Amino acid sequence: MGEAAEKRADAPASIDFRTEPSRYRHWKLAVDGTVATLTMDVDEKGGLLGGYDLKLNSYDLGVDIELADAIERLRFEHPAVKVVLMKSGKDRVFCAGANIRMLASATHAHKVNFCKFTNETRNGIEDASENSQQKYICVVSGTAAGGGYELALACDHIMLVDDGSATVSLPELPLLAVLPGTGGLTRVTDKRKVRRDHADVFCTTEEGVKGKRAVDWRLVDEIMPRSKLDEAVAKRVEAVAAGIKDKAAGGVALTPVSRKRSTDASEYKYVSVEFEREHRIATITVRGPEARPPANADAMVKQGAAFWPLQLARELDDAILDIRLNELEIATIVFKSVGDPQAVLAYDTFLAQQGDHWLAREIALKWKRVLKRIDVTSRSLVTLIEPGSCFAGTLAELIFAADRSYMLIGQMEGDNRPPATIILDNVNFSGALAMSNGWSRLRTRFFGELDTLGAAQAAIGESLDAETAEELGLITAALDDIDWEDEVRVFLEERASFSPDGLTGMEANLRFAGPETMETKIFARLTAWQNWIFQRPNAVGPEGALPRYGSGQKPNYDLKRV
Amino acid sequence: MGEAAEKRADAPASIDFRTEPSRYRHWKLAVDGTVATLTMDVDEKGGLLGGYDLKLNSYDLGVDIELADAIERLRFEHPAVKVVLMKSGKDRVFCAGANIRMLASATHAHKVNFCKFTNETRNGIEDASENSQQKYICVVSGTAAGGGYELALACDHIMLVDDGSATVSLPELPLLAVLPGTGGLTRVTDKRKVRRDHADVFCTTEEGVKGKRAVDWRLVDEIMPRSKLDEAVAKRVEAVAAGIKDKAAGGVALTPVSRKRSTDASEYKYVSVEFEREHRIATITVRGPEARPPANADAMVKQGAAFWPLQLARELDDAILDIRLNELEIATIVFKSVGDPQAVLAYDTFLAQQGDHWLAREIALKWKRVLKRIDVTSRSLVTLIEPGSCFAGTLAELIFAADRSYMLIGQMEGDNRPPATIILDNVNFSGALAMSNGWSRLRTRFFGELDTLGAAQAAIGESLDAETAEELGLITAALDDIDWEDEVRVFLEERASFSPDGLTGMEANLRFAGPETMETKIFARLTAWQNWIFQRPNAVGPEGALPRYGSGQKPNYDLKRV
Repeated sequence: MGEAAEKRADAPASIDFRTEPSRYRHWKLAVDGTVATLTMDVDEKGGLLGGYDLKLNSYDLGVDIELADAIERLRFEHPAVKVVLMKSGKDRVFCAGANIRMLASATHAHKVNFCKFTNETRNGIEDASENSQQKYICVVSGTAAGGGYELALACDHIMLVDDGSATVSLPELPLLAVLPGTGGLTRVTDKRKVRRDHADVFCTTEEGVKGKRAVDWRLVDEIMPRSKLDEAVAKRVEAVAAGIKDKAAGGVALTPVSRKRSTDASEYKYVSVEFEREHRIATITVRGPEARPPANADAMVKQGAAFWPLQLARELDDAILDIRLNELEIATIVFKSVGDPQAVLAYDTFLAQQGDHWLAREIALKWKRVLKRIDVTSRSLVTLIEPGSCFAGTLAELIFAADRSYMLIGQMEGDNRPPATIILDNVNFSGALAMSNGWSRLRTRFFGELDTLGAAQAAIGESLDAETAEELGLITAALDDIDWEDEVRVFLEERASFSPDGLTGMEANLRFAGPETMETKIFARLTAWQNWIFQRPNAVGPEGALPRYGSGQKPNYDLKRV
Repeated sequence: MGEAAEKRADAPASIDFRTEPSRYRHWKLAVDGTVATLTMDVDEKGGLLGGYDLKLNSYDLGVDIELADAIERLRFEHPAVKVVLMKSGKDRVFCAGANIRMLASATHAHKVNFCKFTNETRNGIEDASENSQQKYICVVSGTAAGGGYELALACDHIMLVDDGSATVSLPELPLLAVLPGTGGLTRVTDKRKVRRDHADVFCTTEEGVKGKRAVDWRLVDEIMPRSKLDEAVAKRVEAVAAGIKDKAAGGVALTPVSRKRSTDASEYKYVSVEFEREHRIATITVRGPEARPPANADAMVKQGAAFWPLQLARELDDAILDIRLNELEIATIVFKSVGDPQAVLAYDTFLAQQGDHWLAREIALKWKRVLKRIDVTSRSLVTLIEPGSCFAGTLAELIFAADRSYMLIGQMEGDNRPPATIILDNVNFSGALAMSNGWSRLRTRFFGELDTLGAAQAAIGESLDAETAEELGLITAALDDIDWEDEVRVFLEERASFSPDGLTGMEANLRFAGPETMETKIFARLTAWQNWIFQRPNAVGPEGALPRYGSGQKPNYDLKRV
């Protein structure tokens, strides 16, 4: 089936998602007052996996890790920025999309994980635009092909030079027999609202569309001669910035997330990950705060990246990504917590009290993104609520993000930690941490039981013991100390025994009841079809389009429609 | 990859979708006043493809073809029916779901087409319930496993005997490493609104759920001891029927759809299908009416199945299904029409004037279903609008259902038929023929251009020539006689040259802009994931769960999560 070798000799032992501008090889981030410029200038020799050159600003996961980092930093380190100008550092090409040789040689799992991360990054651009008023203007002064145009699609405004050669295109289908899977098809129909037959022509035209037709078909927002480009950009930047009110100056430095790795564990300050690889389990333990919240917003800013909710969110995000890409055989992620629930709640209260303070808002939005990342992580998720845990407010979302949750009734023999409790907070209902379907996890959970949702909301602030939590429908089961070990073990063993693919498909369906949004469409309809195609011989088989690309040999297709 | 042999020696040369109650081998349809009983009693030896026994009321496509026929007949032949009781003719088993050996031995294309058809059948049940007030009550007095429970899920009300042995279950994942793909996962979350962790437990519990827990978890609507079953059913039927006002008596007989087949063509009365297999093209030509509409509703009922809109809809439906299942290498379906557009419009007007007459309503609903079937047909669709064509009103939907449409400007040399026109009607805007996203095709088409939608609506009733139609955005391109042949040929050749899988994925995304519904969720999210799984070695490979089922050997899974 053309499944590439498990791991290339020149691939890194593990993929690291942590980076910072001084280490970027592919992007340049420059900030000037309220305007930032993000320049893509991919280092051909800087491929993450090895075995391919990143020609023509094509990208791989390594390039996207830098982009994701830059987008995050713009929000936290440069909150005053109103407009982000995204452009190419190369002549005549904006971006050639995902590197084809990388795709052709990558394993199925890597392709899928690569697409998921790049989708999250593009959603992050739209999230920054919508919620942080950082508007992205994309300047396409050469070709924007495939993933290159998909990057433009994630921006608010696309400017295309009208010089007879600059084009936008989605040539994946004619050229590679795969889909524009990084949101391309969905954003064409649902964001740009391109008419369906135009979209059909566009997506089957290898050479793409340029000039006036690109505007007429809603593929770009404006065109201008090359000689007027700088002027047009300056005007557009000014116009967009003028529509956004001034924002906080300052910012907090996103200092490196520090992680200590041993064979079976990763240790962060507030997160521990323990791997039991023989049982295919990773246990993520999050720790509550060590101190009371700071006195006020200024003190919070002063703590910066060390402020507990921010540091924890960044560490948890890194832990999830690390498991996704580097621990492929882990079947189940177990969430645990350690700490004082009231102390956790105090931070939620503190953040709520900051009202519209930019950093408080950014931290809530960061949590929203981290939790969404967990929602689309294709591992089984279970939350264990034990004595000494602190699942309150924001951290309680880890219960509702899980496929199942078990809570211990009372104490274990010989353990004098207080019995576990759950405390709900406004943040669990307000939608501030909404899933990608636009609903809070509890709203989604109680889709069929609005009364139960009301009862849960009425219990905000109460310390709920296991039996009450079960009655309120907040957990899957409350278990006593006699049943606990067996039940949990049986669940984990069962999960490890099922087909990993079947679980991926099942969880991707069960996790998203209720409404669909452009985001869920991308992660469901589009991604699932792309994953199917990534398995089909016409794309990845020995005579398929991906391996034959650039070989001079045409692909040989099985002509049956399915 | 475990792809089964292309065609079994004992499989029929072609699959026929036409049947009638006297020929049923697997179902019994009995009608008593306002109550119908649909009894599933599958003939073990009546498998469609051969090579398996249909034990325990398990089903294959042949069984579902009969069910689909029965559902249609209830609407047209028995409009007085208010309640349909669905039950099993076997002891201790309601239905064991799709036959596993059939699934294990079927080609990928057959599996996918089988699932699509069964999904359409179940959507048809819900359509009959919602729009024809024929409510389905499902009596589960034994096991309802997998597709068996999915059949129950399509019904309005599920009654489960509480005898310690009758259960509902979705054992696909633990048993077969595939999904409950006939709407199961989606209806559990979005129709029954089962809480997510309960759904997770349910879908991973091979033995299923019974008794009180089945009610508590919202999996069924009521339970009763076996001794009280008849009484409970009678009571429920009465209660449901009492909520529905009396309906028309009578009905029209769905006489057999007659079809003459030759090597390269299928001829119906109002539909011709011409196959150019070497170019991978099927051309479907629909013909307008031969006579003016009947004088009144009674005359329409008297015409019955021969009434032009009904006969055409049934013939078109059969032609589409025939291509789907029996002509796998056809890349593109070309729609053409021949007739007088004003005559077509006269029928739309006639039907609209019948107000709430049951047959007029059923015919519109039938067209809605046929057009939806076209929407989810995984072939490229193009409509050619030529002189002598009659794309008006309902038939104009064939333009908007297509991926592209081309219209000839003026006449061809030597052809004195009048230049092509399109005429829009209320039916194109009202939602009466809505897509599965709930929007009309024109509303979907002009998602980003509401002004254009308004302009099109303002043109209702006008004979629009090619240039006007292009200006209004109704067609992809208006072409003169010099360009026509080349442009159309290039398009058809290009389509035939692309990867069939890539096209399937692309079209499945581009066709459904705008909102998502339970129906689109089933055809997109759920189906796409299932198709992916149907390609994965863990399900279909030589050591996968499907071929190893019942062999005594456990499947051997690749443990990597993707």
